[in-house]
Amino acid sequence: MKDYTVTIDLGGTKILSALIDEENNILMREKVSTDIKDGGEGIVKDIVASVESLINNGEANYENIKGICLGIPGIINPFDGLIYNAPNLNLTNYNIKNDIQKKINLPVFLENDVNLGALGIKRVEYKNQVKNMLVIFVGTGIGSALILNGALYRGSSFFAGEIGHMLLNLQKDRSKKSNMTFENFASRTAVVSRIIESIQDGESSILKDYVMKGRKIKSKAIAEAINSGDKLVMEHLTDSSKVIGNMLGNLQTFLNFDTIVLGGGVVEAAGDFVLPIIQKSFKKSYFDVTGENTKIVSTKIGDDAPLFGGWEVINEGLGLSVE
Amino acid sequence: MKDYTVTIDLGGTKILSALIDEENNILMREKVSTDIKDGGEGIVKDIVASVESLINNGEANYENIKGICLGIPGIINPFDGLIYNAPNLNLTNYNIKNDIQKKINLPVFLENDVNLGALGIKRVEYKNQVKNMLVIFVGTGIGSALILNGALYRGSSFFAGEIGHMLLNLQKDRSKKSNMTFENFASRTAVVSRIIESIQDGESSILKDYVMKGRKIKSKAIAEAINSGDKLVMEHLTDSSKVIGNMLGNLQTFLNFDTIVLGGGVVEAAGDFVLPIIQKSFKKSYFDVTGENTKIVSTKIGDDAPLFGGWEVINEGLGLSVE
Repeated sequence: MKDYTVTIDLGGTKILSALIDEENNILMREKVSTDIKDGGEGIVKDIVASVESLINNGEANYENIKGICLGIPGIINPFDGLIYNAPNLNLTNYNIKNDIQKKINLPVFLENDVNLGALGIKRVEYKNQVKNMLVIFVGTGIGSALILNGALYRGSSFFAGEIGHMLLNLQKDRSKKSNMTFENFASRTAVVSRIIESIQDGESSILKDYVMKGRKIKSKAIAEAINSGDKLVMEHLTDSSKVIGNMLGNLQTFLNFDTIVLGGGVVEAAGDFVLPIIQKSFKKSYFDVTGENTKIVSTKIGDDAPLFGGWEVINEGLGLSVE
Repeated sequence: MKDYTVTIDLGGTKILSALIDEENNILMREKVSTDIKDGGEGIVKDIVASVESLINNGEANYENIKGICLGIPGIINPFDGLIYNAPNLNLTNYNIKNDIQKKINLPVFLENDVNLGALGIKRVEYKNQVKNMLVIFVGTGIGSALILNGALYRGSSFFAGEIGHMLLNLQKDRSKKSNMTFENFASRTAVVSRIIESIQDGESSILKDYVMKGRKIKSKAIAEAINSGDKLVMEHLTDSSKVIGNMLGNLQTFLNFDTIVLGGGVVEAAGDFVLPIIQKSFKKSYFDVTGENTKIVSTKIGDDAPLFGGWEVINEGLGLSVE
């Protein structure tokens, strides 16, 4: 008899659930829109319905499902199942684990979604043969997760990895308006803002039409502009990629990673363009030989990364007994 | 019968050795000048003589000494006993462990001296009840060591903690001359350079005499100037302390430490002045509540920190068998 997990990636717009076996085969998927207006109640209802659907229609049954793992976009406590704050889900100080376990008789585990993604990358892309790894996702914001000495590093109050909120210039106060955080400079949101600004200032770009019509510029549009050789977009993306490389090189100096993995919308859509720039500025910015043997690559498993992380969380077994 | 260790702090000018029991009592000390002109041979000879003297004159004998632990100012491999590079000892790619074990029949362990200091602080000041701790020493340079998830974090090629070589501004290349590293701005060496420059530019300071006579300004002189209310010295030390606080706050955002411990010449001599400034700028620079419950304090055990770390290294037992 095979063992399975159900892993659920809770996003602000959709809830992705998957039934996965121990060999990392995704046997079935469920996708529903996130109902955040009823607070925890609506979300729990959707989760329970997804789990039941995966069990009733898939090859697994309650007996061979080792647990349910939730990936939460926010700060959570994996020991007691509490969501401290998940703004996209509109949840604060909510014990989602208790509420799900009232309705399903299976162990429920929680992990921050970025951490869960890093665990998935570690499991599937590196067969757990990675010791010190930084995983960074560049999208509307910039998030990261850390595998250190082979294990997920959560920090002292589950806040570790907030790379997007690090400052770019340490000779200025955080309060200074001119002092930017990493994500305020290098996220897709920030790059798009600068592209729009330049177009409004009269510079030419094939994205001009987007700006004129007020259409949202997403990663795909950026990739298309790059592929058509759009100079303006290339320039702004080069600037942000250089700073990403500098940030990674600086953290390399401090933490001496063996592996740095990049993911997220921008990297998925325009990896061929941004990755070499990031790698080059990384190489120029770490100290001495601290990054000499470090692999700096993009992830190939994209949005599925958190789904693959579920087994790692369940095997760790945090919160199964009172700590 | 009690157990003992001999822990040896190898510095560029002196070799400090101590006989220590499991209750962290330093029972005897030895101090000799470092003889670096004969390469490893001279150093090993001095180490062996110190160990023999501690054993012959102290309460321990070979049978109840669990091991010898060396603190090395450089990059080392604790598994095989190799010193990759220790510029102050004039040693490169030298297996000090093998050479000592040829002369003394006791297990020999190696650790980087800053790491060893952090282990000593963890053991003696926190009774090992600290989970995620950054230890930073501000002196002629700036070094640091990391305890993460309760264990020493060495990095993938034993380079972790090179905080002094991190850049202050990530919007510039490392190669830019104007782009300073943390220690080039905030070490004692850097602060003293700026003090000397200011005095040479005609600003008044009670350290003027030092500059005129070409005397070296050490931490003690800085502390005396601060205690006499010397405005120039206070100004420069405030600048560097603010940047130290910013750096710590930025790393707090990323690693969510529970404890940050400061040590080294400047902090020991002028802690009452610099610590409140560092704490204030730390509080202003970490993101959100990532540093809310973090203790940021100075160490009380000073130069003895590495000596106390020996037991931790010996208990970890790295390199006792082939890995």
